[in-house]
Amino acid sequence: MKPILVFQTDFTYMEGAVAAMYGVVKSVDPSLEIIDATHEIPQYDTWSASFRLNQYIRFWPKGTIFVSVVDPGVGTSRRACVALTNDGYYIVTPDNGTLTHVKNSVGIKEVRMIDETINRLKRDDNKAVAIFHGRDLFGYCAARLASGIISYEEVGSTYPVDEIVTHEIKEAEVLDDEIKGIFEINDPNFGNLWTNISLDDFSRLFKHGDKIKVVIKHKGQVIFNEILPYFASFGMADQGSVMIYNNELNNIALAKVMGNLCKSYDLSYGEDYEVSFRKVENNE
Amino acid sequence: MKPILVFQTDFTYMEGAVAAMYGVVKSVDPSLEIIDATHEIPQYDTWSASFRLNQYIRFWPKGTIFVSVVDPGVGTSRRACVALTNDGYYIVTPDNGTLTHVKNSVGIKEVRMIDETINRLKRDDNKAVAIFHGRDLFGYCAARLASGIISYEEVGSTYPVDEIVTHEIKEAEVLDDEIKGIFEINDPNFGNLWTNISLDDFSRLFKHGDKIKVVIKHKGQVIFNEILPYFASFGMADQGSVMIYNNELNNIALAKVMGNLCKSYDLSYGEDYEVSFRKVENNE
Amino acid sequence: MKPILVFQTDFTYMEGAVAAMYGVVKSVDPSLEIIDATHEIPQYDTWSASFRLNQYIRFWPKGTIFVSVVDPGVGTSRRACVALTNDGYYIVTPDNGTLTHVKNSVGIKEVRMIDETINRLKRDDNKAVAIFHGRDLFGYCAARLASGIISYEEVGSTYPVDEIVTHEIKEAEVLDDEIKGIFEINDPNFGNLWTNISLDDFSRLFKHGDKIKVVIKHKGQVIFNEILPYFASFGMADQGSVMIYNNELNNIALAKVMGNLCKSYDLSYGEDYEVSFRKVENNE
Repeated sequence: MKPILVFQTDFTYMEGAVAAMYGVVKSVDPSLEIIDATHEIPQYDTWSASFRLNQYIRFWPKGTIFVSVVDPGVGTSRRACVALTNDGYYIVTPDNGTLTHVKNSVGIKEVRMIDETINRLKRDDNKAVAIFHGRDLFGYCAARLASGIISYEEVGSTYPVDEIVTHEIKEAEVLDDEIKGIFEINDPNFGNLWTNISLDDFSRLFKHGDKIKVVIKHKGQVIFNEILPYFASFGMADQGSVMIYNNELNNIALAKVMGNLCKSYDLSYGEDYEVSFRKVENNE
Repeated sequence: MKPILVFQTDFTYMEGAVAAMYGVVKSVDPSLEIIDATHEIPQYDTWSASFRLNQYIRFWPKGTIFVSVVDPGVGTSRRACVALTNDGYYIVTPDNGTLTHVKNSVGIKEVRMIDETINRLKRDDNKAVAIFHGRDLFGYCAARLASGIISYEEVGSTYPVDEIVTHEIKEAEVLDDEIKGIFEINDPNFGNLWTNISLDDFSRLFKHGDKIKVVIKHKGQVIFNEILPYFASFGMADQGSVMIYNNELNNIALAKVMGNLCKSYDLSYGEDYEVSFRKVENNE
Repeated sequence: MKPILVFQTDFTYMEGAVAAMYGVVKSVDPSLEIIDATHEIPQYDTWSASFRLNQYIRFWPKGTIFVSVVDPGVGTSRRACVALTNDGYYIVTPDNGTLTHVKNSVGIKEVRMIDETINRLKRDDNKAVAIFHGRDLFGYCAARLASGIISYEEVGSTYPVDEIVTHEIKEAEVLDDEIKGIFEINDPNFGNLWTNISLDDFSRLFKHGDKIKVVIKHKGQVIFNEILPYFASFGMADQGSVMIYNNELNNIALAKVMGNLCKSYDLSYGEDYEVSFRKVENNE
């Protein structure tokens, strides 16, 4: 059975780009299976692309080929690559930060720059199209790899794994009675905020049912200061209340139950925000 | 040939949840076919989940397995179940009202509570994640059932069909010269409103081409009072006019032709709205 | 291997229409492969439907069957048809302008009106549904054709290709030192504007790196008058600057780099807008 192709981009389905890209895949080999991860990565946001890939990649069968096209530098000298992860997945992507989280978690075993002389779609009219690498380069090369037309070695030459472009990943800070972190990302649908604090670290200080002092700073200014409960799931809290929970990646997160925390408190993610969780004293 | 898996949720494609859920399915059995019904059910809206499922289920091949995850009570004591309908479909869902319309129309033959000791995804790290049952429970169990790894009996124990949680369904009221009903749901794309009045009931009083007195009340107050035509399809009415038609489920509906009725008249669906259709007197 | 079915509509995924349509396809033949081109064509916009189809059709394997349902005249006398293109694709669609661009580019070899007596879904309850041809007619007929249940000849009778309904396509005007055209369409995601000027025509006057005088008129009034660079790709321009590029269809387009040109300058597409590109004099 051939590997599945899983796609994520910032193209949306508002126009014909996804359909053109998938047509190229099917023209390489009509038996290939294509699955949408998402085409709604925020525009040009390679941090989100990296985070989302790491959110779901481990749940797929080994050998699955992921194609991620969030590519603000298309047509410049940024590398087009195929990475092989330490746990056996392939990622076809511009090397522009999209590999950050996967490299940091499971690690990259090998990375190859796509050889455009053999792995780029030739048009009948022989005209160059500089701006749609999703269709002509990433999708095309991924289809050839999935189909077995080329081996991984035939993607192109390797380059050093430590040359892979990455964003900085901030680690949480665990103190005696407090943990400090950042919001790494949000859940844009339900409006939850996900921290960079692991369940393991959090569990050294806190357990389900605890009430915890939560302070959020924006550019150093305190903008949220409340005592919140830590629950196993949303159904345990009152509707409209804010709670702490362990998210689907086993990181600590905040939610407004049946509501939207980001909208209600005008919060977002990124380095401008700090969040701390501290044990509540008896007199608080 | 294995049954198809058809998914509906309120997750959207804005983040990686769908991709993680589908990865679990493909890891159970890469040959399974996954089709999106929709991931845009309004958040936490088990009424809409129930209505939409009933809107499309009958058009699929017998044996198709539907997975519906709109789950405001995730992590509470609400049951996780697999229902077998009287016409031979499987529905994998939290038992929280999602089965209302299908139970009311074709009926449920048997329902089983998912046995989490065997049909829930075990993580390598053995950490519990309470909040993503779509991925770890519903998707995983549905994939095992579709793949033939478990039989329907192996889902878990049966429980009485009349214990299934349902919303109240209001019936239309047919009088001598008038029919009264509610708007059960809208068409959120085109802005049409769908009543709970069947074509059969409506046809006892009205026929295509009739002009009909339509009164809409909101919390008892009349907010719309017009004489509207009843047409077979949109192309027969003037652009921008409001008309009555028989919708794709053979219920009576209202539309603003090439426009959006809900937005134009600030209308919505639910029990706060009543609608009546009455024969027009000669002097009207 | 059976032909792939590729769908585009203006239904969105907000309700159950797509799922019902796909269920009908799978009930005809569960082995058929269904791929979304897009369900986000602007409502009732047969021009966009035509443009998008032409944007991606050529990238698919020969024999692929495209189903396009943007159908403001559903239930009227507009024809329902299956067209065979000169390059070997099938298009199942209302004949309402959707075939414009494909007919103009590669040409239509033959067109057949769908015979509703054999290629329309019969409901068990034998009730007519006038308003959902996507499900009952186009999807159903396309599935029968893809499955081999009917041949192309069995779709229905041919009618003259020159009776196909088309929108007017405006050609660009190439002068000695200037090219004039219109914006045919936008990229609604990134906010770029695509002209009807081909790369071939443009290249007679301009080359990459040139600075070019761009004048945009709306209803005859000049609303944009700037000298812009012509680059091979977005990565070569400053963030936030406006540039000229060759789009994925080898037509000339305008973009605001890492921004949204349409929103920033309140621009759109259609015949109200004219755009001209002129050589810059030395003293400009």
